[in-house]
Amino acid sequence: MRIFPINKPLILITMGDPSGIGPEVIMKSMASPGIEGLAIFVLLADKESIERYSAVFKGKIVYYNAEKGIENIDLNEKALNVIDPTVTKTTFVPGKSTPEGARKSLDCIDFAISLAKKAEGSDKVAIVTGPVSKEAVSKVSPGFIGHTEYLQEAFGAKLVSMVLTGEKLNVIPVTRHIPLRDVPNKLTEDLIYRTIEQIIEYRKEISGKPDAKIGVAALNPHSGENGRIGREEGEIIKPAIERAKALYKNVEGPISADVIFYQALKGKFDIVISMYHDQCLAPFKMIDFDTGVNMTVGLGCVRTSPDHGTAFDIAGKGIASPESMIRAIKLAVRAIK
Amino acid sequence: MRIFPINKPLILITMGDPSGIGPEVIMKSMASPGIEGLAIFVLLADKESIERYSAVFKGKIVYYNAEKGIENIDLNEKALNVIDPTVTKTTFVPGKSTPEGARKSLDCIDFAISLAKKAEGSDKVAIVTGPVSKEAVSKVSPGFIGHTEYLQEAFGAKLVSMVLTGEKLNVIPVTRHIPLRDVPNKLTEDLIYRTIEQIIEYRKEISGKPDAKIGVAALNPHSGENGRIGREEGEIIKPAIERAKALYKNVEGPISADVIFYQALKGKFDIVISMYHDQCLAPFKMIDFDTGVNMTVGLGCVRTSPDHGTAFDIAGKGIASPESMIRAIKLAVRAIK
Repeated sequence: MRIFPINKPLILITMGDPSGIGPEVIMKSMASPGIEGLAIFVLLADKESIERYSAVFKGKIVYYNAEKGIENIDLNEKALNVIDPTVTKTTFVPGKSTPEGARKSLDCIDFAISLAKKAEGSDKVAIVTGPVSKEAVSKVSPGFIGHTEYLQEAFGAKLVSMVLTGEKLNVIPVTRHIPLRDVPNKLTEDLIYRTIEQIIEYRKEISGKPDAKIGVAALNPHSGENGRIGREEGEIIKPAIERAKALYKNVEGPISADVIFYQALKGKFDIVISMYHDQCLAPFKMIDFDTGVNMTVGLGCVRTSPDHGTAFDIAGKGIASPESMIRAIKLAVRAIK
Repeated sequence: MRIFPINKPLILITMGDPSGIGPEVIMKSMASPGIEGLAIFVLLADKESIERYSAVFKGKIVYYNAEKGIENIDLNEKALNVIDPTVTKTTFVPGKSTPEGARKSLDCIDFAISLAKKAEGSDKVAIVTGPVSKEAVSKVSPGFIGHTEYLQEAFGAKLVSMVLTGEKLNVIPVTRHIPLRDVPNKLTEDLIYRTIEQIIEYRKEISGKPDAKIGVAALNPHSGENGRIGREEGEIIKPAIERAKALYKNVEGPISADVIFYQALKGKFDIVISMYHDQCLAPFKMIDFDTGVNMTVGLGCVRTSPDHGTAFDIAGKGIASPESMIRAIKLAVRAIK
């Protein structure tokens, strides 16, 4: 097959920082039982950084140089297709963050975006992103906050949701990387409603269940105790939930944060929508720290990523666990199917 | 022995709402193996509501009428001493919240406070409170928010800390039952410092360890990312922790909320101090829902309570679990020792 038109599940994987654990965990994942044949895999990466781990992945690797034009790329269904988006003369040493490495990791993302955009409207594509150094990337690309926001802008998406999926919980914060001080003013009935609406749309991709039970957390302690400890529950959260129920009845809330995660863990909810970052990330990471996968919905295609960083300190030592990357790839495949 | 002077561990237990599960779980706790002989137990309660469960507790019960004056009360070390603070003609029916029941539950608390105050300065007394209906009590005693605040006022305590202790975690929110919107402005370096100082003072009562490792959570996502997502970490939390380290070196932070509870669960911290209610209550209750005990430190004496409510829906059915009450009693005993 060539890349386009896309008629088979296609997973675009970006290497992440070449000096982090990205290349290693990706190659270990590719070698992991049950991955081969799940989809056509295209890895956007620095060739040399991938070759370093070619002993780990014993399958066939086909390298392409994107500078020759993607029209001439003819993917190999049985091999790992590695596209190097730019010719780099630098050797990236594991463990050492460099501006060139950060630049290269961003080139890989940009290339994955351009490929995904060409497939826009197709539901056969998903992106899996390897870990980048936010700090290093923000130096070569000022304003870079993280993949989620970068992809949102690149895809021109009005609203995206950051989903954390784990073995036990699936959670989404309505607001993300903003100071806690700004959370109450950022929350509106409209934002909460549109987030619930988006999660309803993607409930199957997130939880694997078409009839997923969705719980919505309150903002204030004890869900505001009927207005005695805050009024957002009655004024904006409850109205947003009521509107969403007209779309899909399996939505419940607002429920006190110290109750909803316990209930979700016990199976009462498949998905929990929370009002801010730490409200759901603290319980989520406590219980699903090692199994968490980050998923972005609302872009042109689903994007997933492992829930760990570049781990420069252990890069190149061969000891990085590919578990989270394997889960990210499998989740991306499930989202396509 | 008489009540005063106090020279033996004395646990004052308040019945809670007579129509809730308080009387039942208290009597079941008293009958539980390992409780007898731990301390002298004084139960402040409605006589009839306790007699209803006398078949559960097969030990000796001695009833006293407080209206005759506590000077004449001669406690029985081998029995459960039940003091009825007020003569009530009402029969309290399990499952039915009434203003009279709420009034009675408050009378029991008031009486326990007066006993504890007479023992002020002694470290031989602790209070264990049964669950009341906050809503019902706030109608007979306007302004009642909960035991913690009520006891704080009664004891004239400048600062109290609400501690949630469980099998796996011990957590303390610096701010408690206030709207999330008000949290950032309520937090000051001084409040955070004084809370850490108080927890250092009570670390052994809370965790059982004199060398308890204390972690302090950040306020903002990712601990503010060096000021990019909020400035409270650098401006108030870090300075408070630095000051506290001069008192006790085993204090660390600020640590992102999505990391600190995971670390605590893995054993890195014995106690986590968090900035607001849901930040610690959501992870705590998710993991320690069934084993949680509430503890108040900073009063004239330690106070503990089970971490459940009146459960009017199951009151009188004989099915309420005394687990949390047993833990509350044992924690109170440990705090004395």
